[in-house]
Amino acid sequence: MSSSTVVTNIATLVTNDPSLGDGSPLGLIQDAAVVVDGDRVVWTGEAGRAPAADHRVDAAGRAVLPGFVDSHSHLVFAGDRTQEFNARMSGRSYSAGGIRTTVAATRAATDAELEANLTRYLAEALRQGTTTFETKSGYGLTVEDESRALRIAARHTDEVTYLGAHIVSPDHADDPAAYVALVTGEMLDACAPHARWIDVFCEKGAFDGDQARAILTAGKAKGLHPRIHANQLSYGPGVQLAVELDAASADHCTHLTDADVDALAQGDTVATLLPGAEFSTRAEWPDARRLLDAGVTVALSTDCNPGSSFTSSVPFCVALAVRDMGMTPDEAVWSATAGGAAALRRTDVGRLTPGARADLTLLDAPSHVHLAYRPGVPLVAGVWRGGERVV
Amino acid sequence: MSSSTVVTNIATLVTNDPSLGDGSPLGLIQDAAVVVDGDRVVWTGEAGRAPAADHRVDAAGRAVLPGFVDSHSHLVFAGDRTQEFNARMSGRSYSAGGIRTTVAATRAATDAELEANLTRYLAEALRQGTTTFETKSGYGLTVEDESRALRIAARHTDEVTYLGAHIVSPDHADDPAAYVALVTGEMLDACAPHARWIDVFCEKGAFDGDQARAILTAGKAKGLHPRIHANQLSYGPGVQLAVELDAASADHCTHLTDADVDALAQGDTVATLLPGAEFSTRAEWPDARRLLDAGVTVALSTDCNPGSSFTSSVPFCVALAVRDMGMTPDEAVWSATAGGAAALRRTDVGRLTPGARADLTLLDAPSHVHLAYRPGVPLVAGVWRGGERVV
Ligand SMILES: [Zn+2]
Ligand SMILES: [Zn+2]
Repeated sequence: MSSSTVVTNIATLVTNDPSLGDGSPLGLIQDAAVVVDGDRVVWTGEAGRAPAADHRVDAAGRAVLPGFVDSHSHLVFAGDRTQEFNARMSGRSYSAGGIRTTVAATRAATDAELEANLTRYLAEALRQGTTTFETKSGYGLTVEDESRALRIAARHTDEVTYLGAHIVSPDHADDPAAYVALVTGEMLDACAPHARWIDVFCEKGAFDGDQARAILTAGKAKGLHPRIHANQLSYGPGVQLAVELDAASADHCTHLTDADVDALAQGDTVATLLPGAEFSTRAEWPDARRLLDAGVTVALSTDCNPGSSFTSSVPFCVALAVRDMGMTPDEAVWSATAGGAAALRRTDVGRLTPGARADLTLLDAPSHVHLAYRPGVPLVAGVWRGGERVV
Repeated sequence: MSSSTVVTNIATLVTNDPSLGDGSPLGLIQDAAVVVDGDRVVWTGEAGRAPAADHRVDAAGRAVLPGFVDSHSHLVFAGDRTQEFNARMSGRSYSAGGIRTTVAATRAATDAELEANLTRYLAEALRQGTTTFETKSGYGLTVEDESRALRIAARHTDEVTYLGAHIVSPDHADDPAAYVALVTGEMLDACAPHARWIDVFCEKGAFDGDQARAILTAGKAKGLHPRIHANQLSYGPGVQLAVELDAASADHCTHLTDADVDALAQGDTVATLLPGAEFSTRAEWPDARRLLDAGVTVALSTDCNPGSSFTSSVPFCVALAVRDMGMTPDEAVWSATAGGAAALRRTDVGRLTPGARADLTLLDAPSHVHLAYRPGVPLVAGVWRGGERVV
């Protein structure tokens, strides 16, 4: 038997339902309440009109928003790359193995080590308000190591992505075609049962447009839905390929032509921006304003990984998006919740309306704007996931 | 009777004593221990050589550094400026009262309200590893309101700064000279007993060089030591005046001529950089690299205030300094600890060597580099202040 809880005395509630409250995309309700029954939201509205519930939580004049939906992370890995980061930021040369360092450490790790690392970073993200996350393989690059990464990830989330095509495996450095054949053949067969998504790093030095098309098409034939690392480091075919294949998301989108923006605006592919990567590599910022003005759906995620963006903090990404990518605080909060849900083609998360999963983040602040107004401050004061208080 | 505690199994210990460990300015010791007796550090070194102690804390392979010394904040205020921030970041015009909004709210607040607000932000800073903080008046701008701000602040820190010269009080908008006379006369008399420092905002639209000199000189005559908001928004006389008057710190230092840099390099005035302000106002970054290369002592602080930098997070400032101001992770960590201590002319904090105050910050990470490598992530896992565990 489920029991109901009313969370009340909410100064600002973000519902992401524009038919509610102020009628903005965030559907903001002032002096609000949310009623949760079991793992679902059953009522949202003004506190004075809330129906009775078994339990009562006093938000004490603080803000509540949907739990963040982090639709892009790489959390099945071992080791870290502190020395490489330190050298890069200190202007020292360093014979970094880059991603290969992480591949070697990940292959050498036991299942238990990988799972302990994953659960550690998931707990860290949860404390920062992330209640739904996607995570990828991509540091194994063998049939066995990729499939075990996905098996481990699938114990912790439904949003598991097969990224055998992260880079050409060092084992096949001289024969990329053979690696593509492996990724679309035996590796795909081993991985498809454990994943929902297939992803590819479409970039100079990784996989070109034809390879990416072959990989994503093969994945689709096995029931995986595509998403794609596109146009991060340079202009390229990734974004338009994503729209052509109806990928749920094109991720990074830092270097876009007008035709790329048009394609995103016409299609159903979300543009997922990952400002942690630009922050940690001192790279050029993606132009969120341009995408939003063109009508593109934008998501914000962490890209959490030990090489280029070792942050698990969606609030940090919100603050960066506002400061450096031309998003308003409202837009950034929408993109980190409803936008992430759209990038995962989910309608049960990223909103707080009847029927949605009861994933709530309580801030130690009176409004969601404080996520940008108070950058770097750990503002998350409480988290409910599936109706259960977990922070 | 005091009792001793050994904190051991520290993967990386930042001592800020270059005679220790790796001999760098951070005096890094790997596999280290710290012994605390009462409120003091009594021993620092390799864990295997640590003397016996009454209690033992296992740092579990994580990093320990001196508690952050935040030498510049404005925490005696009421209200916030969410709407102004939101409008600025959303590109909307807003008839903001700016600092006057905060002055009005602060004057209207009760002592209890001001103290509750102050203690809230201090607790927030403490959770993020700040064990020493300076804070200022400057939102009262009357004899009574400035002196009560300082009285309230002095209950919580020894580092209290009289900033009657924050802006010309709205009550004297037509007669700035009369306001300077008040600040250097009756207001100073009322405030001096409660403060250690005197500060002035030397900037176009606030106080010019002559006014700043008169204010700081009057403060010195009453036993207050100078510090100065200098060269934030434009080039100006503030930095050279600071050095001339042997101010402990010139704060902001965003617009510097070569002569300004030379003056800082020759004098004993610390350059305190406040990247939270540039972040939250989308302003040009100060060039820490230029200062460091010239031999200037650099501190990093938050400038926490509700108008231009509403962050209490020193780790966030460290990450920004590395990303955008040309500091290495080591330099940024030094500046946020030993640098802040230098800006307050303190030798008992900002280092972990025998005789120092036992202010320790334990990170959920194996090294101090992670403060920049993992931006936005709340990494502070424990804090000791004066030998007492407080987080
Ligand atoms: Zn990625
Ligand atoms: Zn200031």
